[in-house]
Amino acid sequence: MRELHQPGQLHPAPENFIAPSLLDDITKHGLDAQRRTFLRQSFLAAGTVMLAGRAHSQAIDQSAEGDPAILNLPPHSTSLGNPVASSPYGQPSRYEANLQRRESPGLTRVGAASVSFSPLQGMFGIITANGLHFERHHQGWVDIDPSQHRLMINGLVKQARVFSMDDLMRLPSVSRMHFIECGANTGMEWGNVAVPTVQYTHGMMSCCEFTGVPLSLLLEHCGYDKKNGKFILAEGADGSGMTRTIPIDIALDDVLVAYGMNGEMLRPENGYPLRLVVPGVQGVSWVKWLRRIEVGDQPYATKDETLHYVDLMPDGQQRQYTSIQECKSVITTPSGGQTLVGQGFFNISGLAWSGRGKIRRVDVSVDGGRNWRTARLESPVLSKCLTRFNFPWTWDGKPAILQSRAIDDSGAVQPRLNQLRAVRGAKSIYHNNAIQSWQVGINGELRNVHLE
Amino acid sequence: MRELHQPGQLHPAPENFIAPSLLDDITKHGLDAQRRTFLRQSFLAAGTVMLAGRAHSQAIDQSAEGDPAILNLPPHSTSLGNPVASSPYGQPSRYEANLQRRESPGLTRVGAASVSFSPLQGMFGIITANGLHFERHHQGWVDIDPSQHRLMINGLVKQARVFSMDDLMRLPSVSRMHFIECGANTGMEWGNVAVPTVQYTHGMMSCCEFTGVPLSLLLEHCGYDKKNGKFILAEGADGSGMTRTIPIDIALDDVLVAYGMNGEMLRPENGYPLRLVVPGVQGVSWVKWLRRIEVGDQPYATKDETLHYVDLMPDGQQRQYTSIQECKSVITTPSGGQTLVGQGFFNISGLAWSGRGKIRRVDVSVDGGRNWRTARLESPVLSKCLTRFNFPWTWDGKPAILQSRAIDDSGAVQPRLNQLRAVRGAKSIYHNNAIQSWQVGINGELRNVHLE
Repeated sequence: MRELHQPGQLHPAPENFIAPSLLDDITKHGLDAQRRTFLRQSFLAAGTVMLAGRAHSQAIDQSAEGDPAILNLPPHSTSLGNPVASSPYGQPSRYEANLQRRESPGLTRVGAASVSFSPLQGMFGIITANGLHFERHHQGWVDIDPSQHRLMINGLVKQARVFSMDDLMRLPSVSRMHFIECGANTGMEWGNVAVPTVQYTHGMMSCCEFTGVPLSLLLEHCGYDKKNGKFILAEGADGSGMTRTIPIDIALDDVLVAYGMNGEMLRPENGYPLRLVVPGVQGVSWVKWLRRIEVGDQPYATKDETLHYVDLMPDGQQRQYTSIQECKSVITTPSGGQTLVGQGFFNISGLAWSGRGKIRRVDVSVDGGRNWRTARLESPVLSKCLTRFNFPWTWDGKPAILQSRAIDDSGAVQPRLNQLRAVRGAKSIYHNNAIQSWQVGINGELRNVHLE
Repeated sequence: MRELHQPGQLHPAPENFIAPSLLDDITKHGLDAQRRTFLRQSFLAAGTVMLAGRAHSQAIDQSAEGDPAILNLPPHSTSLGNPVASSPYGQPSRYEANLQRRESPGLTRVGAASVSFSPLQGMFGIITANGLHFERHHQGWVDIDPSQHRLMINGLVKQARVFSMDDLMRLPSVSRMHFIECGANTGMEWGNVAVPTVQYTHGMMSCCEFTGVPLSLLLEHCGYDKKNGKFILAEGADGSGMTRTIPIDIALDDVLVAYGMNGEMLRPENGYPLRLVVPGVQGVSWVKWLRRIEVGDQPYATKDETLHYVDLMPDGQQRQYTSIQECKSVITTPSGGQTLVGQGFFNISGLAWSGRGKIRRVDVSVDGGRNWRTARLESPVLSKCLTRFNFPWTWDGKPAILQSRAIDDSGAVQPRLNQLRAVRGAKSIYHNNAIQSWQVGINGELRNVHLE
């Protein structure tokens, strides 16, 4: 099966795309008039119907006989296709079977406590199609009957309450687009392991439009204790009974008790029928299969916030509750494992995000960080959401190192890996937001490198 | 299978949700302290673990024996779930099998020249999950091998050219969110037919993030004739050889030659591997399986723009090339075919859009248009994109008529059906953007009504 948009080999653009300054607003600019001969050759070799030069020709008339062009029409252009609703719930093309989330072999001992990574190298824009959303389970995923599912809110509240899904889905709802990133994303890069592809370096991240009830509404409704209620505990209904402490100010800010994801119900792997959405905070706090929220007066210090998801510092201490996903970006194509076939124009494309707010700017370097130029950001640019950037680049065939550097609207600048290591050491797992470097060899092959 | 979020029966919220003015920003407001007794009853009856009042209890300890609460834990909370990547490309929950696009029985003679409608009554936010995108084919859908597909640009150009998919995908790309609406959406409502559900009145509409190459870049690249090139013809590779004329000023503005849809490649039913995206313009012009673009000096007047997609006016004349989808909105829930079970709070939710730009405001009426109040718009509000609105409503058990009215940033106000008929007559098929009315009976049943 051909990986059309996960190309192992990237050919340069057929055109002599010129100076980036001319491409600042690519919809308003034309191309260099200089053309290469191979374009014309490929035109002649394409085997496609030729009508060039007919200034006002009619559309191809398939009933016309004797026109040699007609002989070249493929069967799909001369026959009856498939009926509507032949897939009541649609599926990707058979030619796209290779674009899939993948488990990293050997990362964990059992697949029910593992990760599958989103194939960022073959994805576009900022929205993650639900079928490609990354997975991280602690005791496997379950498909819960929504008619039996309940959410309880208890603890420091005037009135503990239990909600059915019907109860929740008729309450006022909001819809918002947010990224979700596992705190362990890019975790292997702390040490000397340079994971070969962007799917495995950064693929524990996805971005969707979520719909649900503001948690603040439910907490108010239960009469939470405004004096002593300083934290909430969110608890999942899976076998791991995942539990996470969240400060009350975050819980009251923009947290959602969500059931919708990209217009449809959550997928089972993502917590169907109910999960917490905690914008800007690491994925483990977005508790899936959410069954209970308790209001308390201090952090709960549960297993998954004392033994896991803590940061091992150089002095041997563990930092807890460092849950905000800091300003970060990565070039998704060209990226590790891909090969540039020949010199010429390539579109550098990537993603930027920050748990602190909006992305203000993304810079791109093709020389390992000596020089930086500003990339073009696609709209919309939303708070705590992925931002897609694009940058035009003409490869001259010499060695190059591609990097991106994000700056968010709090002023935070994405750090270099050695800057981060100077503070955090090299034995952490979580919260690595370092600049990613893809080295281009003279053979055009890209690989993940750790710069000094 | 239970249609959880396509409920035939809508129960009121368990709470006495109060005046809409207090809910303007629902994330900042609390609820009425008055509670109904049935909430407490449902709480006691819910069969869920009770930990109310334990201010700082630990998470449920599944190893604790002798606690009767433990006995109630369902199997999915006490066992090992499914491994990651058990669906490398994920699928919806088994409980969501009823949420699907559906063909309207009898609408056309063959399924290959028919429509399947998006289930708007069960959808959230603005993004359409790719599996629920509506379909409209003229000779069926095909799944084209992208390595064999070509796009030709010819006509009034200095150099006709043919592009492979590889050629196109390495060019500069942009990503944008846009709605696509069939020109025939809501077409049955011109006459006396009041189609019963919102899936069939408005479901020929979806909204995605599209990624592709600006058409302007390709036209510049081929050296289109800036003096005489007034129109383009877009042509599809399916059996119908769909052809549409598009004015050059639209073609140069924001049209994309697109391959990406919500982060992945287009679906076969939506034109894989290449379709035109013509923001704000009716769906038929978003030519699927795009194989050719020709630059010409006058409209092409092909079959699908002379016999179809024309507006029959009261004087018997046909209006051609009325392709912009005008300012429009619809309440998606509660909507026709659903039943309100009892008085109380309901969240009215719907969609608004305009082919002219952004939605400025949406008003909601619950009394058939005598009084209007402003709905809350979800962000982002983008140009030529769906906008989700929400409006809090407490039903008093009396007859009601629910309507929404959109206003776009060009100042256009969505018309009443009788206003539209006064100009356009009642024999049209296309371009009906009238206000939709859902009548609520004293039995709580909602049905589609045409008001005088």
